[in-house]
Amino acid sequence: MSEAVFPVTEFEDRADRAQRLMREQGLDALLFTTEAEVRYFTGFRTLFWQSPARPWFCILPRTGKPIAIIPQIGAHLMASTWVDDIRTFAAPHPTDEGVGLLSDALNPYAVVGMPMGRESSLRMPLIDFERIKVTLPGTEFRDASALVQALRHIKSETEIAIHREICQIASRSFESAPNLFREGQSLKSAFRRFKIDLLERGADDVPYLVGGAGPGGYGDVISPPTDAPLKSGDVLMLDTGAVKNGYFCDFDRNYAIGHASDAIRQAHRKLVEAANAAAAIARPGKTCADLFNAMTDVLGQSDGGVGRMGHGLGIQLTETPSLTAFDTTVLQERMVLTLEPGLDLGKGKMMVHEENIVIRDGAPEFLSTPAEPDIPVL
Amino acid sequence: MSEAVFPVTEFEDRADRAQRLMREQGLDALLFTTEAEVRYFTGFRTLFWQSPARPWFCILPRTGKPIAIIPQIGAHLMASTWVDDIRTFAAPHPTDEGVGLLSDALNPYAVVGMPMGRESSLRMPLIDFERIKVTLPGTEFRDASALVQALRHIKSETEIAIHREICQIASRSFESAPNLFREGQSLKSAFRRFKIDLLERGADDVPYLVGGAGPGGYGDVISPPTDAPLKSGDVLMLDTGAVKNGYFCDFDRNYAIGHASDAIRQAHRKLVEAANAAAAIARPGKTCADLFNAMTDVLGQSDGGVGRMGHGLGIQLTETPSLTAFDTTVLQERMVLTLEPGLDLGKGKMMVHEENIVIRDGAPEFLSTPAEPDIPVL
Repeated sequence: MSEAVFPVTEFEDRADRAQRLMREQGLDALLFTTEAEVRYFTGFRTLFWQSPARPWFCILPRTGKPIAIIPQIGAHLMASTWVDDIRTFAAPHPTDEGVGLLSDALNPYAVVGMPMGRESSLRMPLIDFERIKVTLPGTEFRDASALVQALRHIKSETEIAIHREICQIASRSFESAPNLFREGQSLKSAFRRFKIDLLERGADDVPYLVGGAGPGGYGDVISPPTDAPLKSGDVLMLDTGAVKNGYFCDFDRNYAIGHASDAIRQAHRKLVEAANAAAAIARPGKTCADLFNAMTDVLGQSDGGVGRMGHGLGIQLTETPSLTAFDTTVLQERMVLTLEPGLDLGKGKMMVHEENIVIRDGAPEFLSTPAEPDIPVL
Repeated sequence: MSEAVFPVTEFEDRADRAQRLMREQGLDALLFTTEAEVRYFTGFRTLFWQSPARPWFCILPRTGKPIAIIPQIGAHLMASTWVDDIRTFAAPHPTDEGVGLLSDALNPYAVVGMPMGRESSLRMPLIDFERIKVTLPGTEFRDASALVQALRHIKSETEIAIHREICQIASRSFESAPNLFREGQSLKSAFRRFKIDLLERGADDVPYLVGGAGPGGYGDVISPPTDAPLKSGDVLMLDTGAVKNGYFCDFDRNYAIGHASDAIRQAHRKLVEAANAAAAIARPGKTCADLFNAMTDVLGQSDGGVGRMGHGLGIQLTETPSLTAFDTTVLQERMVLTLEPGLDLGKGKMMVHEENIVIRDGAPEFLSTPAEPDIPVL
């Protein structure tokens, strides 16, 4: 299925905004090899990117629609998008997986922008990319990470509506915690029940679910669940990136199993207070660093080892910008962000808390139903 | 959680096999930036790779254990693996996301192998990779795709046992089709019910579920489900990559809704016959091309536009080798493969069928419970 949830004007608008920036920056074309960017400009959505076997390419020229240069297996699905110019190659192929077609397609352009900077990767064999550069000695390849990231910072109301829907699904699942989690249950089983609850409430998928549990906090925020049983006195945290129509939510909730110590109650209050302090000043014109500082002011410490306290959200679980002391990206209306304060509790333990918001002209809109200051006891 | 399902000897053996090949090929170290490779050599398993924000690096020197060069957020989880030398950097970072640390770590090595060829990608900013090459003018970076792929072709019995478990979970879910799918149900709802069934039966995750439905076959094999209702006469296909302990199954099943035409019955028989014909000759010493040819002989046509008729399976949904006419990889014991014959049915319709097997000394072991020739009618 193509992105039928979006009208064609959504893609026209994305291309138009990109092309305006391309003209300003002297770029003749943009080249993309990665899922999020190809989807953003074409509407081509498939889980098939999980197979590393075949490269996929998309070119956005300075005028007109994107050009798709893709393996034959994707032709039928790509034809359902707004893209007209679909060039296919046989893949796997013994000697040429799209390199010839891609070189020909890039040939007219003197300056080609592509994501090469922060948060980017090259989803094609490095050897093939080098071959293309050799084939096109007159072509300059230039970093266009910031251009594409800036575009994707600002969501359309259609994108925001999808975010809202998946955030509300996850909020309902988190509210069902008393029915899902209990002392003695293994962490793995708790995660499985939560995932099923998300699907039953309408999530299309739950690509990301991590967390932890332990007395006095957990060790990190990126681990898959173990078979260890939940014990009275544990703090349980689940952090989910669930998906609807290809867009993520990304927030977590903490629960105390049986009872909560004063230290944990206090830490939870502080985390909620920190997120609310950032939300309270989140307006167009403020910066990511401002939000970061608002949170550290409440917490009295930095980021609990996570490296930042929130980030952009969209097609990907995490997108730019980052809420750090050094990210001076200026907030604009319709940015979707996570607020994710973290506390180092000492002795290798930590706690994090996360909400999802949209920057508005005025107070931000909470997409996740905001957590109460008191940690829920299950 | 680290790969607690594996004894440390599993990782020692992987490193040892790699290092023997490195010595043969004159490589002083291997450099990895991608999830599957970092996990294969370290045991570091997390869904956090879905966040593109931070690069992760692993170096395997010619002797000794791997070196992990990772963002601080991963230090706790990496410490639970067999890796001792864990070097962390602050990420996100305004100017240096591990480039300095990585350059220092690579400095002692004259020839560094890394995946640059078929099926590889570079999961770090291209600009940062170029900076490292400039910092280390005496270092030669050489393609080591084939080396790493050859290692990963051969699974341990521990890996195979996990594959068997997830393939059997998926087989049970497919057998439950009469309880899960029905005429009038939307394809989206059918997919959701199937995913929940997989989770309830013990799958950790269902990262991949694609398919289609339609009269006389479906249009492709990579699409997410639509809201269209299943109609009598439709052929329904679901192709799942479900996961247990970080290892995939990857196979599909076809069902006829209400009734099946003779053409569809015949196509299904032919597909099952083709997979069985490949399995019948799948022995150490045969090649991938032999299996491909065994299938095309039955089908009387090539690959239905998919480009191949099976592939390796493991940590990733698809791994090398490919079952194509040109892939002459020689089969060896303990290779885990999918057999995936496809039929172009004309008028833009197709059908595919897939099984998962292990190459053994003698007849292969089916990991998926093999499909019957008659298409099940629901």
